Amino acid sequence: MRKNEQGRSAAKLKAIPLGGLEQVGLNITAFEYEDSIVVVDCGLSFPEDEMLGIDLVIPDITYLRDNINKVKGFVITHGHEDHIGALPYVLKEINIPIYATKLTMGIIENKLEEHGLMNTTKRKVVKFGQSINLGQFRIEFIKTNHSIVDAAALAIYSPAGVVVHTGDFKVDYTPVFGDAIDLQRFAEIGKKGVLALMCDSTNAERPGFTPSEKTVGHTLDSLFLEHKDTRILIATFASNVDRVRQIINTAEKFDRKVVVEGRSMVNIIDTASKLGYLQIADRTLIDMEELKNFPPEKTVIITTGSQGESMAALSRMASDNHKRISIMPGDTVIFSSHPIPGNEKAVTNVINELQMKGADVIFQDVHVSGHACQEEIKLIYSLVRPKYAVPVHGEYKHRKAQAKIAAQLGIPKENIFMLQSGDVLEMDEEKAVVTGKVPVGAILVDGLGVGDVGNVVLRDRQHLAEDGIVIVVLALESGSDQLVSGPDIVTRGFVYVRESDELLEEARVIVEEAVQDCLDRSRKADWGKLKGVIKDTLSEFVWKRTKRRPMILPIIMEV
Amino acid sequence: MRKNEQGRSAAKLKAIPLGGLEQVGLNITAFEYEDSIVVVDCGLSFPEDEMLGIDLVIPDITYLRDNINKVKGFVITHGHEDHIGALPYVLKEINIPIYATKLTMGIIENKLEEHGLMNTTKRKVVKFGQSINLGQFRIEFIKTNHSIVDAAALAIYSPAGVVVHTGDFKVDYTPVFGDAIDLQRFAEIGKKGVLALMCDSTNAERPGFTPSEKTVGHTLDSLFLEHKDTRILIATFASNVDRVRQIINTAEKFDRKVVVEGRSMVNIIDTASKLGYLQIADRTLIDMEELKNFPPEKTVIITTGSQGESMAALSRMASDNHKRISIMPGDTVIFSSHPIPGNEKAVTNVINELQMKGADVIFQDVHVSGHACQEEIKLIYSLVRPKYAVPVHGEYKHRKAQAKIAAQLGIPKENIFMLQSGDVLEMDEEKAVVTGKVPVGAILVDGLGVGDVGNVVLRDRQHLAEDGIVIVVLALESGSDQLVSGPDIVTRGFVYVRESDELLEEARVIVEEAVQDCLDRSRKADWGKLKGVIKDTLSEFVWKRTKRRPMILPIIMEV
Repeated sequence: MRKNEQGRSAAKLKAIPLGGLEQVGLNITAFEYEDSIVVVDCGLSFPEDEMLGIDLVIPDITYLRDNINKVKGFVITHGHEDHIGALPYVLKEINIPIYATKLTMGIIENKLEEHGLMNTTKRKVVKFGQSINLGQFRIEFIKTNHSIVDAAALAIYSPAGVVVHTGDFKVDYTPVFGDAIDLQRFAEIGKKGVLALMCDSTNAERPGFTPSEKTVGHTLDSLFLEHKDTRILIATFASNVDRVRQIINTAEKFDRKVVVEGRSMVNIIDTASKLGYLQIADRTLIDMEELKNFPPEKTVIITTGSQGESMAALSRMASDNHKRISIMPGDTVIFSSHPIPGNEKAVTNVINELQMKGADVIFQDVHVSGHACQEEIKLIYSLVRPKYAVPVHGEYKHRKAQAKIAAQLGIPKENIFMLQSGDVLEMDEEKAVVTGKVPVGAILVDGLGVGDVGNVVLRDRQHLAEDGIVIVVLALESGSDQLVSGPDIVTRGFVYVRESDELLEEARVIVEEAVQDCLDRSRKADWGKLKGVIKDTLSEFVWKRTKRRPMILPIIMEV
Repeated sequence: MRKNEQGRSAAKLKAIPLGGLEQVGLNITAFEYEDSIVVVDCGLSFPEDEMLGIDLVIPDITYLRDNINKVKGFVITHGHEDHIGALPYVLKEINIPIYATKLTMGIIENKLEEHGLMNTTKRKVVKFGQSINLGQFRIEFIKTNHSIVDAAALAIYSPAGVVVHTGDFKVDYTPVFGDAIDLQRFAEIGKKGVLALMCDSTNAERPGFTPSEKTVGHTLDSLFLEHKDTRILIATFASNVDRVRQIINTAEKFDRKVVVEGRSMVNIIDTASKLGYLQIADRTLIDMEELKNFPPEKTVIITTGSQGESMAALSRMASDNHKRISIMPGDTVIFSSHPIPGNEKAVTNVINELQMKGADVIFQDVHVSGHACQEEIKLIYSLVRPKYAVPVHGEYKHRKAQAKIAAQLGIPKENIFMLQSGDVLEMDEEKAVVTGKVPVGAILVDGLGVGDVGNVVLRDRQHLAEDGIVIVVLALESGSDQLVSGPDIVTRGFVYVRESDELLEEARVIVEEAVQDCLDRSRKADWGKLKGVIKDTLSEFVWKRTKRRPMILPIIMEV
């Protein structure tokens, strides 16, 4: 380690967010000091509305690939998709070890198994309070609370100073399982001096404190009491093991049997049980097939679909497409969730459908957030007392709201950094400054294809979605360039063909005339020009007659 | 009028909602008594997400067309799109007179002019308190309050009894312009006996009272005071004339000039001004070109785009696509609106973009709803005291919430009707019962096409949007059925073609083999069978290699 005359490390610590600052999800941040890089999280994001047909989005890791010799490992804060979901894709490109707490690792291993990566991926489970050495870095895992158990904040020690990264967190003084967030350790590290705090911004616009997860348990108790004569269905997030635990606890109090429905929920409960994070009395959990042996008012169905996802169990029940469960008049359906932004309408549609089937639907106040509100953010800043503030996790407006909080707490404006993905923030105790930019991006996954759908393909899909396609095929005789067949017109997604004979025949005649005219004019057919003529003629005709702009695709065959 | 032995009218009053009960918008309800039909409102709805490429949706009016001799006129409650937007389309099919209050008619006339219907459409402006006779009906217009001025409730008098239809309404004791809702008249009509109340359900889930529009004025005053050193941009609903009035009032107090931007807002302000609903001092309103003559802190820009609509003025400013206005650091942007359900994400995106440009964005608590909350709904029920309750305007869950309120107020359950569009509710003082069903539906408008895009076309668009299209063209020799050209493969929206040479060439070879094999087996080519073989072969190959399901379209030419 080189030192300058004051005995300080001459090199600087670089924090490089490779994603996650322009959208929800895609969380991945590289920390670099001289020859060492550690990477915090490796999340996916779900496609935006205009990304037609895309399954998921993963970060561009060109920077890591280009510096692969430096990269020591992935350090994972918790087991949500926006923090781990890209791992299986990224690991196929760069094979580096993973460090995470027990349940987080359990969830990651499910993914690795699915992708056949178990044998090739080095993994190490880390305990809270434990540190791991990765090159010139030491990483300490600090206990936090979140809507999934085993969430960690990270203290990232480098010769140039310490960065505290909260991951997603809230302050829960009375968690349902395990310990409260280790505030003492945040204070201790803060007392020794922290360079930068990278803190969760998701709820930075909300004043006050996020209530304890335990309050949901009380709400569930009173709802079960109120609806003691009906079957109860509860939709919640598959990964919220504590929520499931509380539902089961309440069910046991009221002597109800519990069925779990929805593949992702069954999987996570399975993993959590195996690893000791969830104990369920044998007599409580029953199989779907046993449901009929109990009166409805003695059963609870915990299900996926709290976000109105069209393929999830609850949505299928609501639309009568579920094989084994039908909504019955009198059923009580509880949404133990809030709609994630963008899902509001889908959730509302499911609620309407459930009510139309006679269900009593409860969709407010049976949920608490997993993210820190303003007072909790202030608390963490006040314990850690960082020199630099780098708001992370959240849209721009959320991060901006945290930046305002940081300023209120006395951090000078020039020490608060609203970064963009790819920014290289170099820092030491003297100063912090964005010194460069590394390549970043969102890579689209569609089926087996990773990155083969880009802007060209998406633009075509959007065009096709809007007004469909009109295909013109014709055959020219090789050599003579005489029209020997066609032009024929085939359309899809443009008009209802059976009722548009006239329009399409008119279009055919107009194209034929234009083609013939073009062929007559020159002895040797210029296919590019011919295609251009077809496109122009047809799009003008179609626009005039329908005010639509379908994709027009001329295909010329040579025979 | 026939009477039975008790002297009561023997015929019954029918209320037939022709739309609006399964979705927001598409409000249109027929009232029928013997040989007379009057129609309340004629709204459009905006397309659902899955209605790709659709511009708007209008109601199916088959029932009115089939009974055109009975139909006496449209009676319109107010000038919002979900109550008047389908008129130009419907009037082209059935030419009947329109009755509405002055501003409502002004807005309708703008539409009629656009569609060249002014000369052929009979129109009559009605004043509050005035009644019109339409066949066996008498219709009275009652003053209400809403987020557009000149909104009316209707008392629909028939020999079988009176129905009160609230339209969209709220109770505003201190409106910004004109009178408060005529509660005395509701009471008077109620006192004489009302058969049914059809009441707005939009806010029936919300407890309490909707605040007065005037409260927004106070909020604006304090925001202008707080941001007196910056330019202010305010986005709001184009049709909320009172809101615009208040913004202009506040601007005048702070000696700011006002520019109005966005076509729909300019139009409505123009109409409102012409009809005397909005007086603006000459010195206040300036043209866009004059903006540069004033310091930014002495200007206000009122703009469309409060819903994040991608083509609206504010969204174009946020994304730097506006020709004449650029967002500058320090600008204050106020959203005087709430996101309509489904628009949350679009609005958030615009807020993020504005903040990234350095604007201070205020998006909470500068708006009040135009719809009645629970206490207002109770008030109207208590004044009108109807025998039957028929909740209207709102999704199922909103209407259900109103049904609960009606029950709390003592209306027997069997007298509360959760109707579906098309239901024929027959009623008199004895009883009310759903006796039948008339045809209803949502007709899709795409460009000039009304109804030519249906399920087939939409399914194709969805398929194309998901994974694009793979086209296989080949030419067979007429007579011999020999393959003389192709098969060629052309794709759009499937994969990035330039990087998929191998995949597409492999696909071509596989299809060629399958085609050749199929041709070899039979002497005369069965085109249907050949297309089937191409589809099956190719979709299997494509699925195996990409896990995608593009539309596969074989085209065979004969030469």
